[in-house]
Amino acid sequence: MTEKRQLAGELRLSDAGKHVVLKGWVQKRRDLGGLIFIDLRDRSGIVQAVFTPAKSEAALQIAESVRSEYVIEVQGEVVKRDDATINEKMVTGEIEVLVEAVTVLNEAKNPPFTVLDGEDVSEDVRLKYRYLDLRRESMQQTFKLRHHASQVMRSFLNDEGYLEMETPMLTKSTPEGARDYLVPSRIHEGHFYALPQSPQLFKQLIMVAGFERYFQFARCFRDEDLRADRQPEFTQIDIETSFMSEEEIMAMTERMMARVMKEVKGVDLSLPLPRLTYDDAMSRFGSDKPDTRFGLELVDLSETVKEAGFKVFKDAVAGGGKVSAINVSGFADKFSRKDIDKLTDYVKIYGAKGLAWLKVTADGLTGPIAKFFEAEEQQAIQTALEAKDNDLLLFVADKTSVVYDSLGALRQKIAKDLDLIDESVFNFLWVTDWPLLEYDADLGRYFAAHHPFTLPQKQDIDKLSSAPEQVKASAYDLVLNGFELGGGSLRIYKKDLQEKMFEVLGFTKEEANEQFAFLMQALEYGAPPHGGIALGFDRLVMLLAGKTNLRDTILFPKTASASDPLTNAPGTVSEAQLDELHLQLQAKNSEE
Amino acid sequence: MTEKRQLAGELRLSDAGKHVVLKGWVQKRRDLGGLIFIDLRDRSGIVQAVFTPAKSEAALQIAESVRSEYVIEVQGEVVKRDDATINEKMVTGEIEVLVEAVTVLNEAKNPPFTVLDGEDVSEDVRLKYRYLDLRRESMQQTFKLRHHASQVMRSFLNDEGYLEMETPMLTKSTPEGARDYLVPSRIHEGHFYALPQSPQLFKQLIMVAGFERYFQFARCFRDEDLRADRQPEFTQIDIETSFMSEEEIMAMTERMMARVMKEVKGVDLSLPLPRLTYDDAMSRFGSDKPDTRFGLELVDLSETVKEAGFKVFKDAVAGGGKVSAINVSGFADKFSRKDIDKLTDYVKIYGAKGLAWLKVTADGLTGPIAKFFEAEEQQAIQTALEAKDNDLLLFVADKTSVVYDSLGALRQKIAKDLDLIDESVFNFLWVTDWPLLEYDADLGRYFAAHHPFTLPQKQDIDKLSSAPEQVKASAYDLVLNGFELGGGSLRIYKKDLQEKMFEVLGFTKEEANEQFAFLMQALEYGAPPHGGIALGFDRLVMLLAGKTNLRDTILFPKTASASDPLTNAPGTVSEAQLDELHLQLQAKNSEE
Repeated sequence: MTEKRQLAGELRLSDAGKHVVLKGWVQKRRDLGGLIFIDLRDRSGIVQAVFTPAKSEAALQIAESVRSEYVIEVQGEVVKRDDATINEKMVTGEIEVLVEAVTVLNEAKNPPFTVLDGEDVSEDVRLKYRYLDLRRESMQQTFKLRHHASQVMRSFLNDEGYLEMETPMLTKSTPEGARDYLVPSRIHEGHFYALPQSPQLFKQLIMVAGFERYFQFARCFRDEDLRADRQPEFTQIDIETSFMSEEEIMAMTERMMARVMKEVKGVDLSLPLPRLTYDDAMSRFGSDKPDTRFGLELVDLSETVKEAGFKVFKDAVAGGGKVSAINVSGFADKFSRKDIDKLTDYVKIYGAKGLAWLKVTADGLTGPIAKFFEAEEQQAIQTALEAKDNDLLLFVADKTSVVYDSLGALRQKIAKDLDLIDESVFNFLWVTDWPLLEYDADLGRYFAAHHPFTLPQKQDIDKLSSAPEQVKASAYDLVLNGFELGGGSLRIYKKDLQEKMFEVLGFTKEEANEQFAFLMQALEYGAPPHGGIALGFDRLVMLLAGKTNLRDTILFPKTASASDPLTNAPGTVSEAQLDELHLQLQAKNSEE
Repeated sequence: MTEKRQLAGELRLSDAGKHVVLKGWVQKRRDLGGLIFIDLRDRSGIVQAVFTPAKSEAALQIAESVRSEYVIEVQGEVVKRDDATINEKMVTGEIEVLVEAVTVLNEAKNPPFTVLDGEDVSEDVRLKYRYLDLRRESMQQTFKLRHHASQVMRSFLNDEGYLEMETPMLTKSTPEGARDYLVPSRIHEGHFYALPQSPQLFKQLIMVAGFERYFQFARCFRDEDLRADRQPEFTQIDIETSFMSEEEIMAMTERMMARVMKEVKGVDLSLPLPRLTYDDAMSRFGSDKPDTRFGLELVDLSETVKEAGFKVFKDAVAGGGKVSAINVSGFADKFSRKDIDKLTDYVKIYGAKGLAWLKVTADGLTGPIAKFFEAEEQQAIQTALEAKDNDLLLFVADKTSVVYDSLGALRQKIAKDLDLIDESVFNFLWVTDWPLLEYDADLGRYFAAHHPFTLPQKQDIDKLSSAPEQVKASAYDLVLNGFELGGGSLRIYKKDLQEKMFEVLGFTKEEANEQFAFLMQALEYGAPPHGGIALGFDRLVMLLAGKTNLRDTILFPKTASASDPLTNAPGTVSEAQLDELHLQLQAKNSEE
């Protein structure tokens, strides 16, 4: 067997007559008694290998002992299949390989689940045997897509003059942001490194260093309680530039996304991408990452109903809140009273006290609250919601944030339940003009809505002290199909403004200069105007691959408790290791 | 100033007459009184900006206030310089920019050192102000080269069907190898993740998963005491393949290196690369990573001198050691007795008891030991060393390992001292046929010379129990100019052989199956024959950039005590953070 190995999935009718060497896995074996068919799988795909006594008695005998997932090498002749046995579902289905010799390269125990797509296996088992799970066709495709997308973006950024640069993983814990993963130092007793939550400060330093255009596929770490779409470590496409405007950064990002969509999905993205201000996104979709693949937009009815006889609506508006509604158009007959009760329970999760509803009939509005509205008011509601026969109108009256959260979630749920979402569509959009700060009433202080290095919009800088809540940020988020792909901003590049920002966030000048010493100092030595963006690569791959679980896009992911059933990480360590790190475990609470 | 910004370093005579907008840093400012010249630097290079009262009094006035490293934006006209003022050392030296308007984008304090190359600054200061250090031309070039080399290699690997895949950073501590960096788990009390020393086991699992061709620019971590060429975190180009032979992996690596050398350095690498067996490398160069840019090869004289009257030589050979020599040809007259004494001190560092020497003159050999050799023996020595007039012959007689270490180091030192090394040359070579195991006499056990997953050479497998020290590995190291660029091997892919290997290393079957459970299990489910290579990317960049310090190739490196003078990492953390991790600091020893 000295011929060069060929790939199973690349054999075609034009190869008929060739003698080939193939190496791969036994996907399936059918023993017809004196005749054995093996679907041989390698990274390129599958081809059918046929073992006959006429061709090789010895090979047939070996094939009898072979089982699923054995690794074998076969030598044989590519032959055209009989017309009757051509398999049009396989790209190699016009041919098969008549085996002349076979070697078992490695055996395989009977796997805990088959490597065929579609078998329902618990995620724990999948993760424990990840090396088998990854053999599935759909997993192979996802990681090929992941590679392809990264190469396309790297190539794009390279073409635009960006340098790929690596920032440290062993860095310093910073007070703002999520919880850090810490790494005890052996040399410096009692000191710890922190794994980076993002390379934010380093990429700003790279700008101060004059590189002007940086990118990195950066591993980031957050020690937070995990949700379905969070992982303790994740990858972001991290980009920073100097001397570019918000518009230029957004345009560059759009060109990059267009290149990825074209090369990876064959989709032509129409540029420029749509934009929504944060305020519009919230009032029209109840979300700062609106899914625009369907309608069901929120309509503000506060003005229309504030004088109506329905006390709930009137009070909400009078109390500084609002009344908004969505029109589930054409589906009124699909919703029973019971269905609507379920929707009411659903909005309560988001803090709404209730869900008011009206149905539109040929005779006008019906429903329990219809009676509170004069004919004129009913007309006004119908007009505002463009309501017609068989529409269901759903209202929430509450504090503004509750109205947005609950109706935003409700429109998503209803769209899903009614199958209104075109899954083949990729709706990108920008959300712009974010608030710079958020006020935490409990703690009585402002927090940075993005991070404390975000540049306020020029016209609002004067309001930083007088009306911080009104200050808009030079920030932009990229949204795809209701997921935040990532976001960016221009950064503060003058020391006095950065000090001012920290002051608004409740730091004294001394604290700011101590905790962010190297940034504050760097800003004094010729920091250029700069800004950038960071996109979640795992999530992008998830959306491009049509997956719903982030774990299907990460090669070796962690479970919801941040552990790995495959390696059993995290594990225990020896006393000697702890001693070297000058640490000891705390005595456990004996509260049992 | 609405024109599109242009790059300073790209302006040429053909741009004369154009009005341009430039943004960048003040590299240098010369005030000739009523006439100011500013060297304006951006990422592309430098151009001279000229401020005159005729063109703009306002701009001139602003230019008076500008200092080094200010960030400015200028608008002006590109004009041809007078012939007398053309600067042929600058690529933009034929033109200058007559400034019509200038804006100070940001000011800069007087930097602690100038941003010009060549200024001698202590490394601590360089690291503390890394963002200034990185502005230097040679640093900018290094990181452009680093980017370029990574893009070339990625593109090569992509073309050859390799997928770039990301393995976890939060993984499990393994007993073999260097010291791990540990990351305490918050959720799993008393448990720790380990940062990977390399993705070795994960890349093997990727092969078991059937991807066949993987690569990654992988961040790796080792908590070891640092030397000049070590960093706690470093980047390796990590490659793994299935179904490829040692020859095929080496050939692929060679093609990749040839592509990098061509595209990054313009050097045509002649393939295949030279090879040396480990045994030959040691006996001819006294090193497993020989620098072949110069001669001074070791010559084994044991046979020649074993019967001579010089007891030191005789005893060394009789005692199982050897006598080797190098011929410093044509330089005998450059070495005084005192010089040779210094060389003797030097070899003592490597354990040699002394350094014997002879000089060759027209009348034969001279020197203190000449008298111990008969004329015939003298002739044999001269013949073996190809010695002629004015050659200096240096001998070490000792245990084999001491002979190799000391003469290996000595040839390197002498080549450097005598300036025998052509620094413009890139001498790649493979070292092959490594021993699989090394015996540690102190601990009385074998250790894996590479790692315990290395495949023994086929013909030696039987010797694993009977004569482990004779077993050669299917391993290969790539050497460049005396530095180990990296190495690889075929891996063990059968469970019984892996168990055998662990047994030789002193693990019981139970221990092996416990500590490497997931690998042992994976080998049971259809593991393909596989192997790979890992190359040190930082070191490759260092050699390509002509640097001598690894820290000049890492954007934000650590000092020898694994700290970062810029961010002051590692730092202290709060009690609350430690509590969350169920840890406390050990009480300090009060030995003061």
